[in-house]
Amino acid sequence: MGSLDRKLAPVDLSHHINLKSRSRHPSPLKDIIKFMGYDGMISLAGGLPHPSLFPIENAQFDCLPPPSQKTRDGEVVNLHLGRGPSAGDLDLTQFLQYGSGAGNRQLVQLATDLTERVHAPPCQYECLLHPGNTNAWSKVVGLLCEDNDFVVVEEFTYPSAQALWIPMGIKAAPVSADAEGILATSLRDTLENWDEKARGGKRPKLLYLVSVGSNPTGITISARRRKEIYAVCVEFDLVIVEDDPYYFLQYPRYSQEEQQPFQAEPPEQFLKSLVPSFLSMDTQGRVIRLESFSKTLFPGLRLGYFVANPVFTERLLRVTEVETQDPAGLSQAFTIALFKQWGIDGYLAWLQNLQYQYKTRRNWLLSAFHDQFEVLPAAKSPVPTAQGYVACLRDKSGKLRPVFSFVDPEAGMFVWSKFYFDGVPRFVELESQSLEDPEQAFSQELWEAMAAELVLLTPGSYYHAWQGPDKVSTKARGADPRSAYFRFSFATPTKEQIHEAVKRVRTVLDRLWEVAARDITAT
Amino acid sequence: MGSLDRKLAPVDLSHHINLKSRSRHPSPLKDIIKFMGYDGMISLAGGLPHPSLFPIENAQFDCLPPPSQKTRDGEVVNLHLGRGPSAGDLDLTQFLQYGSGAGNRQLVQLATDLTERVHAPPCQYECLLHPGNTNAWSKVVGLLCEDNDFVVVEEFTYPSAQALWIPMGIKAAPVSADAEGILATSLRDTLENWDEKARGGKRPKLLYLVSVGSNPTGITISARRRKEIYAVCVEFDLVIVEDDPYYFLQYPRYSQEEQQPFQAEPPEQFLKSLVPSFLSMDTQGRVIRLESFSKTLFPGLRLGYFVANPVFTERLLRVTEVETQDPAGLSQAFTIALFKQWGIDGYLAWLQNLQYQYKTRRNWLLSAFHDQFEVLPAAKSPVPTAQGYVACLRDKSGKLRPVFSFVDPEAGMFVWSKFYFDGVPRFVELESQSLEDPEQAFSQELWEAMAAELVLLTPGSYYHAWQGPDKVSTKARGADPRSAYFRFSFATPTKEQIHEAVKRVRTVLDRLWEVAARDITAT
Repeated sequence: MGSLDRKLAPVDLSHHINLKSRSRHPSPLKDIIKFMGYDGMISLAGGLPHPSLFPIENAQFDCLPPPSQKTRDGEVVNLHLGRGPSAGDLDLTQFLQYGSGAGNRQLVQLATDLTERVHAPPCQYECLLHPGNTNAWSKVVGLLCEDNDFVVVEEFTYPSAQALWIPMGIKAAPVSADAEGILATSLRDTLENWDEKARGGKRPKLLYLVSVGSNPTGITISARRRKEIYAVCVEFDLVIVEDDPYYFLQYPRYSQEEQQPFQAEPPEQFLKSLVPSFLSMDTQGRVIRLESFSKTLFPGLRLGYFVANPVFTERLLRVTEVETQDPAGLSQAFTIALFKQWGIDGYLAWLQNLQYQYKTRRNWLLSAFHDQFEVLPAAKSPVPTAQGYVACLRDKSGKLRPVFSFVDPEAGMFVWSKFYFDGVPRFVELESQSLEDPEQAFSQELWEAMAAELVLLTPGSYYHAWQGPDKVSTKARGADPRSAYFRFSFATPTKEQIHEAVKRVRTVLDRLWEVAARDITAT
Repeated sequence: MGSLDRKLAPVDLSHHINLKSRSRHPSPLKDIIKFMGYDGMISLAGGLPHPSLFPIENAQFDCLPPPSQKTRDGEVVNLHLGRGPSAGDLDLTQFLQYGSGAGNRQLVQLATDLTERVHAPPCQYECLLHPGNTNAWSKVVGLLCEDNDFVVVEEFTYPSAQALWIPMGIKAAPVSADAEGILATSLRDTLENWDEKARGGKRPKLLYLVSVGSNPTGITISARRRKEIYAVCVEFDLVIVEDDPYYFLQYPRYSQEEQQPFQAEPPEQFLKSLVPSFLSMDTQGRVIRLESFSKTLFPGLRLGYFVANPVFTERLLRVTEVETQDPAGLSQAFTIALFKQWGIDGYLAWLQNLQYQYKTRRNWLLSAFHDQFEVLPAAKSPVPTAQGYVACLRDKSGKLRPVFSFVDPEAGMFVWSKFYFDGVPRFVELESQSLEDPEQAFSQELWEAMAAELVLLTPGSYYHAWQGPDKVSTKARGADPRSAYFRFSFATPTKEQIHEAVKRVRTVLDRLWEVAARDITAT
């Protein structure tokens, strides 16, 4: 299931596998399977239902072609999956029957081909199917973590990923980031100065990253920063989990110029434009990459794959056998049939169109910011910010007041913003009361005021790295005072909705920040 | 998601939920969802990819009709799933997008309708979708078990179910069975006399059963026995997990008479012929039923549902959100479309055909036994057996020698058999050596001799309840000496293959048991 030729052998990382995972045994039934292939053998040993009794005969899917194969507008391609000997190697029957846990051989080969084409990992690896990155992460935590461990994450991290491990008593060891991603120096500091006693747990050995278009921050870790982070992980023997659903949704920075119509580049040029993955620079086998088709085909597919050191995939296969078995058969069949039709080149052209669509949506949101606020680059910001840009309003005296800073995301579906509460009357009032967390209290009021104005953002508090119940408030987390974060998603609304939504945000801010409600675009 | 009217309220069973499961919090994003429905609201809060960018436009499945709807041979019905407003309530888009974890509302309703129709549970319950019983059991163990617990199981149990929990240090507390299922008296004894110190763990609070057509034993627990077992579970506060993939594959006992051609009965008559489930007699909410479409539609679907006390399904939903999310969308869409076409009555007719097909296959195997051996009912057996029937060979002096006893299964896909080694020369030889487990050693040789004769059975040792590393040998387990078990599966081979396979088994037995190889059918 992998590509083992001419690759570096991984270093020994078996000590990362936890006690429970180490004690899993392969099913003894596997021993029988090799006998089943003998000439003339009659097996009364299997337990599979009879495939003639599955009620489905044919499956057909009408699909969009990738841009490179488009001939006429609205034309669809038809994928047909039939049963029986005439169906060849795409015989639907195999996808209706139980699988072995390892997934369909052709799909694993496809995963391997894609991995070689996109990442060309220097180290030996295997691909193993899984039913989506949510489940994949759950299996990785089951593989590597013990109760009460620490996991290194970004300061703002994907909430479902930590909701999984919080009940295990696991805590986050957060590392702060700038526009290029988490700081390798901070990571190194955290690890080097780890005090087991003060922390109440062992030095972390696992780094979890959504390294491209991070949810929520939108940050994509730069190539240079990746090298620095990888070196720290080698020094302190960390395993890197690269959860990367947005890898192919990388796009250039926002510019106010007229957008060019979509034009697919040659596949190799497209691939060269993408930041190199951690997997592509992993010379030791310490990167576990979680690949998903959820953001590139569709989420309901519930299909993806691990790319990892065989010492990890072998254990992940053991847990797959008892926790999930193969991903759903129709999902596997659809995906293989689609790739047979599209080819990998067609898929890479499809991805470029996706990239273009999400870039367009990002542009809608940022141009709405420019319409409603005066936007300054960080260098010219009246407040220090690592966030790229600052959206300002002018107060009655004409003075620029920074309202929020934001990241211009180069990937993904989100714009992360930091709101500044300094001098905001209601916040000042809350701060004068002896509340435990005036920032959180005002954030909540601000969110409610926006909801009353019929616009919903996601509160930044959902994404705080979980450091335990004693480190929840702004102060206890050591976060910047007089500020809080919100996430804007641009994936689903229309251009008009996005502009209207930002206008409503401004209405609320005008009122709460007590600045003059005048048309900035007219200045 | 359930049917709460006119039902008994469950007793409080929340103390069964383990510490980790209790500490799971619902995603804070859920709080936002209710705001999304407001008139005129624009949400920049969601994180869903844009559905116009999913490449699939239509899905079509050609399906077999249920026997009740058959008009012409070979006719298929076409299920069509399209996208957009004209697609109505089966709009494919919803199945391509992320779900909420709770599954599609229509499918949950279907699960509820099926549950009412088949089981009419007396107590309040909810249905929650899952991606197959393997995953469902993994979630139930995650809900109820702590490390180093004990779980009550049948003496011979489904190996993947225990492979899941063995790494947690969990052990089986096995209960022996007769032809009507596990003995309620033995269950009571085990629980009443539980010695925490001697056992090294707390009294079990969980009973796991494949209660119809058990894998491997083929036993279906009788209605009378179920009532006795349920009463013991109430007395000792046990939760019953009813893993029941073979429920609809119940059929009458074997008879040597000519088989009647298939004829579907009216649905209510069919349902009345089935043994009542534990769920149907659960007046307290202590049954968690695992339902699967794997054996009734097809395994690759990876779709089933829990039927359980809402106090359990609420926690199971929490873990679904972080461990698997919704089952695969195409599987959900296919299943709803199929039921819309077939109706529940059509499904019940389909099941009767399945039942007939597996009964026919069971008959092929048992008639092959009758062809190759002299088969006596247990009452006339030369050896005491709880197994129903004994297959005998005559030795050179013409004396009947019992070779193996077997269950005539009334459900499922397997015949469970116990082989008697008394007086078998090679076994006597092995017994005279001071081996730790001569039974296991001879079993292995017997299996290899059959494999060399080109017939594969599954060794019974795969199904031994796991009581720890010190209780593996025949003696340490307290199992009957001079015997061992094998499982025959009749699900996949043809009639000719089954007859040939049993003939090969006999060839091996003739040789190893040193009986005359003469044609018994001719006597």
